[in-house]
Amino acid sequence: MSAPNHFDLLATDGPARAGRLTTPHGVVRTPAFMPCGTAGAMKGVHWREVRDAGSDIVLGNTYHLMLRPGAERIASLGGLQHFTGWNGPMLTDSGGFQVMSLSELRKVSEQAVTFRSHIDGTRIELSPERSIEVQLLLGSDIAMQLDECVRLPAERSDIERAMQLSLRWGERSKRAFETAAPGYMLFGIAQGGDDAELRRASARGLVDIGFHGYAIGGLAVGEPQAVMLAMIEEVAPILPEARPRYLMGVGTPDDILEAVARGIDMFDCVMPTRNGRHGMAFTRFGQINLRNARHADDPRPLDEESAWPSTNGISRAYLHHLVRSGETLGAMLLSEINIAYYQRLMADIRDAISRGTFADFRERTRTGWAKGDIAPR
Amino acid sequence: MSAPNHFDLLATDGPARAGRLTTPHGVVRTPAFMPCGTAGAMKGVHWREVRDAGSDIVLGNTYHLMLRPGAERIASLGGLQHFTGWNGPMLTDSGGFQVMSLSELRKVSEQAVTFRSHIDGTRIELSPERSIEVQLLLGSDIAMQLDECVRLPAERSDIERAMQLSLRWGERSKRAFETAAPGYMLFGIAQGGDDAELRRASARGLVDIGFHGYAIGGLAVGEPQAVMLAMIEEVAPILPEARPRYLMGVGTPDDILEAVARGIDMFDCVMPTRNGRHGMAFTRFGQINLRNARHADDPRPLDEESAWPSTNGISRAYLHHLVRSGETLGAMLLSEINIAYYQRLMADIRDAISRGTFADFRERTRTGWAKGDIAPR
Repeated sequence: MSAPNHFDLLATDGPARAGRLTTPHGVVRTPAFMPCGTAGAMKGVHWREVRDAGSDIVLGNTYHLMLRPGAERIASLGGLQHFTGWNGPMLTDSGGFQVMSLSELRKVSEQAVTFRSHIDGTRIELSPERSIEVQLLLGSDIAMQLDECVRLPAERSDIERAMQLSLRWGERSKRAFETAAPGYMLFGIAQGGDDAELRRASARGLVDIGFHGYAIGGLAVGEPQAVMLAMIEEVAPILPEARPRYLMGVGTPDDILEAVARGIDMFDCVMPTRNGRHGMAFTRFGQINLRNARHADDPRPLDEESAWPSTNGISRAYLHHLVRSGETLGAMLLSEINIAYYQRLMADIRDAISRGTFADFRERTRTGWAKGDIAPR
Repeated sequence: MSAPNHFDLLATDGPARAGRLTTPHGVVRTPAFMPCGTAGAMKGVHWREVRDAGSDIVLGNTYHLMLRPGAERIASLGGLQHFTGWNGPMLTDSGGFQVMSLSELRKVSEQAVTFRSHIDGTRIELSPERSIEVQLLLGSDIAMQLDECVRLPAERSDIERAMQLSLRWGERSKRAFETAAPGYMLFGIAQGGDDAELRRASARGLVDIGFHGYAIGGLAVGEPQAVMLAMIEEVAPILPEARPRYLMGVGTPDDILEAVARGIDMFDCVMPTRNGRHGMAFTRFGQINLRNARHADDPRPLDEESAWPSTNGISRAYLHHLVRSGETLGAMLLSEINIAYYQRLMADIRDAISRGTFADFRERTRTGWAKGDIAPR
């Protein structure tokens, strides 16, 4: 059963793709990076800054939002986009990943995953049907199927069992999604751990079911980058060219560059905001630790060639002082600076693909990172 | 010895005054409220928001800045205004108050106060001369004399001793300030605790020395509002009409209204940002606790008649959710909302004084606060 397609493939450059995904709340230029607004907020960043930085779409976490403030409440308040004031495209995960990583006393059965809330201990059952119901209540532009993500390393039999369960949950998720309004999308998620054969089987199973788009899950959980890239190389060729491909939870700028080179269109990661809260800045010189004493007397900005005001207009000395003093403003500025860096990277990637110069861009960008930061003043 | 005057008294309405204070970094409309950027940052608020909210001047804390990143470093980085990117008028306190409240092993002598840094335990001597030197290094538009502030209640003899010491430190501060560039200002500080006679003696002593402006210190430290207002009534009539008057560390919107009614021109307080971090919003309906469950389903903004975007455009339900979830964005939004409320109040006060309708404005404003918040939806 084919689902309507809202993705336009605009250009390719080798396996790298540039496209446009049309959602009920707006258009997403791909390759796209989705900053994570976990519980309905981007940590330390105003929504207008997220948008100004060039973000077309953001991610919300179903697990957090269903526990607090609750899906029914968000629905009655006009949906997640209106509730938060972001008012643009939003993708929500299924809740499954956070159930595994945050909740207690979880139990996976064929029917559902059962867990206790990490907030108040309430016992909650999350089935594929309830996950979709919650995501529809949130008004998510792109919902994700419920899946089971196995921690690596794991026995092949465990990986296979979880992958097969995820396929059955994918089918149930799709049936539950039939009531969604036109234009809203559901993505299936390929599992299979670090096993090439299981990954391929998962991808084929998903394509047989038929989704608006396809995600690769269960990666970026600590495995070497080479394993992650190898799994993408197994899965991507099986996925329909006309559909968007989303690599979940990835990653560093280098991970993104390499995954785009293997045909991925969408990414999400907490890294820009989380690392920003820890005094780290992403720049074309690589990642810079503002806690380092080398910045204490440096009046220069992080990168005077950046177009982002906080990147080209605020001294390293001031950022260093804010980070060392534990001032909220330091985390706020670095989070915003990092989101802007990621979105600039995505814009440059899209541009390079459209011009057919992606391989060159990838080389130049990696060379810049490898060269490292400018010398201390 | 008279100091040059940079204050223009533009209108009076009873004892209330509207004026204009011209500093090297810009003009300050009075009555003015100075948000506190303690360690070179406004907690949870971008500088552009501080300005957009209508702030003409902000306060920096000498104690914090001299310890980290250091006055000499800030001087070499172009001064506090340039270092922080605020780039507008700044007033710094003398450091004395924080020495009393934050540091350890402090010892007051005729010469100086000696203390250990709360950051790294370094032994530091702060004399009137060093305090002025630090404030000149910071590039503060308005420096404050070093004073000794006694915790109330206290013996009259202790209050008198500290007041007399503060007068002698005021003279030394003035001599040390003689090297300041034209246009920079030094304010004396009246002490005297809750003793009317000592307050008057302090004010007269300061006027004899001659400062660019005069502050009332040692209030808003827990005493009843009536005591604070009584002390203002003792001191204000003694101060020269042509000079700006600053009530340090004050206060609630009601404190400000009452102090303006008694002839005060300048205020500073951490309350807008500190209370914002604790889920409290200042509004024309009084102070509102966003943690309260009554807001959980309320789609209405805090005040739809406010001109400030976050006050009129963000739902109570969303603010409630952010506060309950401990999201930084909640503290960021409420801090900004509160600074904007304070600055709107100051603008309305200035306007009412200019029109000669301050008494009426004061009544209406207090009635609004007393009526309380709008009913839950």
